[in-house]
Amino acid sequence: MKISINELRQKILETLKKRYSQEESEQIADILLYAETSGVKSMGIVKMVGTEPIQDMVAEHEPRVVRDTKLSQLIDAGGNAAPVVCHQAVETAIKKAKEHGMAIVGVYNTHSSNLTQAYYVERIAQSDLIGISMASAPASSSGFDSIDPIFGTNPIGMAFPTNDEPLVFDMTTAAMPWSGLVLAQARGEQISENIAIDSQGNPTTDPGEAMKGATLPFDHGYKGSGLALMVETLAGPLVNAAYVDTDLDSPYGSLFIAIDPNLLVDTDKFKKSASDLLNKVRESRKKSGVEAIRLPGERAKENRKQAEASGSIDVDDAVLKQLGYI
Amino acid sequence: MKISINELRQKILETLKKRYSQEESEQIADILLYAETSGVKSMGIVKMVGTEPIQDMVAEHEPRVVRDTKLSQLIDAGGNAAPVVCHQAVETAIKKAKEHGMAIVGVYNTHSSNLTQAYYVERIAQSDLIGISMASAPASSSGFDSIDPIFGTNPIGMAFPTNDEPLVFDMTTAAMPWSGLVLAQARGEQISENIAIDSQGNPTTDPGEAMKGATLPFDHGYKGSGLALMVETLAGPLVNAAYVDTDLDSPYGSLFIAIDPNLLVDTDKFKKSASDLLNKVRESRKKSGVEAIRLPGERAKENRKQAEASGSIDVDDAVLKQLGYI
Repeated sequence: MKISINELRQKILETLKKRYSQEESEQIADILLYAETSGVKSMGIVKMVGTEPIQDMVAEHEPRVVRDTKLSQLIDAGGNAAPVVCHQAVETAIKKAKEHGMAIVGVYNTHSSNLTQAYYVERIAQSDLIGISMASAPASSSGFDSIDPIFGTNPIGMAFPTNDEPLVFDMTTAAMPWSGLVLAQARGEQISENIAIDSQGNPTTDPGEAMKGATLPFDHGYKGSGLALMVETLAGPLVNAAYVDTDLDSPYGSLFIAIDPNLLVDTDKFKKSASDLLNKVRESRKKSGVEAIRLPGERAKENRKQAEASGSIDVDDAVLKQLGYI
Repeated sequence: MKISINELRQKILETLKKRYSQEESEQIADILLYAETSGVKSMGIVKMVGTEPIQDMVAEHEPRVVRDTKLSQLIDAGGNAAPVVCHQAVETAIKKAKEHGMAIVGVYNTHSSNLTQAYYVERIAQSDLIGISMASAPASSSGFDSIDPIFGTNPIGMAFPTNDEPLVFDMTTAAMPWSGLVLAQARGEQISENIAIDSQGNPTTDPGEAMKGATLPFDHGYKGSGLALMVETLAGPLVNAAYVDTDLDSPYGSLFIAIDPNLLVDTDKFKKSASDLLNKVRESRKKSGVEAIRLPGERAKENRKQAEASGSIDVDDAVLKQLGYI
């Protein structure tokens, strides 16, 4: 059903405040609504229901900074909610990069995935910095020529500032995120061909079989598999997180990098050229049947603007009922 | 014909020394032989023949450092050979990252492409640092839904240290590098389907038509196109290089990033976990018909080791004749 975004936000904050501070609740509500209004429903309000609702999470201890240098920070999240700890990590990366030019911040031992790279790298780019993020998760995707799940969904996010809004690119290196399989199974839907294999390595369109087997690299090839391996390493061992399911109690890692373009060229010049570059891409000749060239992140941005303009979004009745919102 | 690597190296050095210093000649010979022995013939000795042999190149001026900070450097290559200037850029990135933890070095206005990312990022990883590189080149590849060439071959290189040799990953975001089209045309061969389109956007297997048209993103989709866009920006405007063919006189840009893992975790621990991760990937169950899981860069490494062990490599007679080596 259609629900007012403001009303929904208030209700979410009330639910979250039973477990989190006002500030933390706002951080979580922000990212859940960002995903929900972007059209990435699997990373939105659905995270407040099911077997591990974010508001019922029990942490081990407060987040701890375990390494800190001028350019870097490593955070043991203590089993806390990834959106809260990663929000803090991104703010730290921005602050350090603004002061010194570049920064790298790692997070391990979060309770869940950090949900959507776009949200974090967009914040970095809004501060006139180039943002890069990667995240590791429980193994669900196979590598090139292999049939075992060895990599997580392993997304990469990248964003840069322009004279207009930042360009935000967010992709999973797996052909489908784990949450996509969960959603398809819940809806009783089949997944497309060439997305996954069953536990014996045979192609399958059954999400349940895919969950016992593995998703494929997004390009079905060695390049996608190589990128997944890089994410597994840089958001795994580099941030003290698990890899290839070595530690099933703490499988989530996040890495954030912020780079001031001014280290190489004047930021104003970079932003102007970046905008010009995007215009040239947008104005290139279109394949027949294509209405407009879309840049990375543009569809999600349009969805968010449409939601904002109308003031309301369509949310699954079952989710709203489970939360007692209707 | 088979030729001794030592003999070939001496001959290459003699040819290069007419134009370059001893040190520069060795840097160029190193990378040409690295590509040649890796099996990437299109970036090897063939660069010494044709319309723009690397030893006949005329530069505008000596390379100039136009911006320099603790963590960064931007170099105007002055139209000099990319392998020489990029070798220097990588050494600078390593030195700065060793001292401060992270570094970013950009190069623009090189005479040619920097040939192969693997070579540069491997050097960085051999210094116990994580290496990332990107390179821009004249537009030859289309973006998602577009038919104009808007992106270069746009490769990405990444490498990290392990307890054994570094893991080196090198991929082009285009389905085929420009040099692959040139080579196919010279050999009178067709290219595979789903690699390129002609100038009207129709699929083609004719390399000549593809050169008038465009190659496709490697995955034929928005993810490959998005990665190509990121490389176009980070190895374009960020390093003061051209983008989408804005400056046909200076279309080549290179970006190198070096990160000390010790910023986040002890380097020894990172290397140990990275090795363990690679072993787990190697030991995962294989698809039927697959003999062994290959890690990124492994085939090229095997080729180099085989060449070293035998002491000789197979080089195209025509190339050797043109160079007066036989």
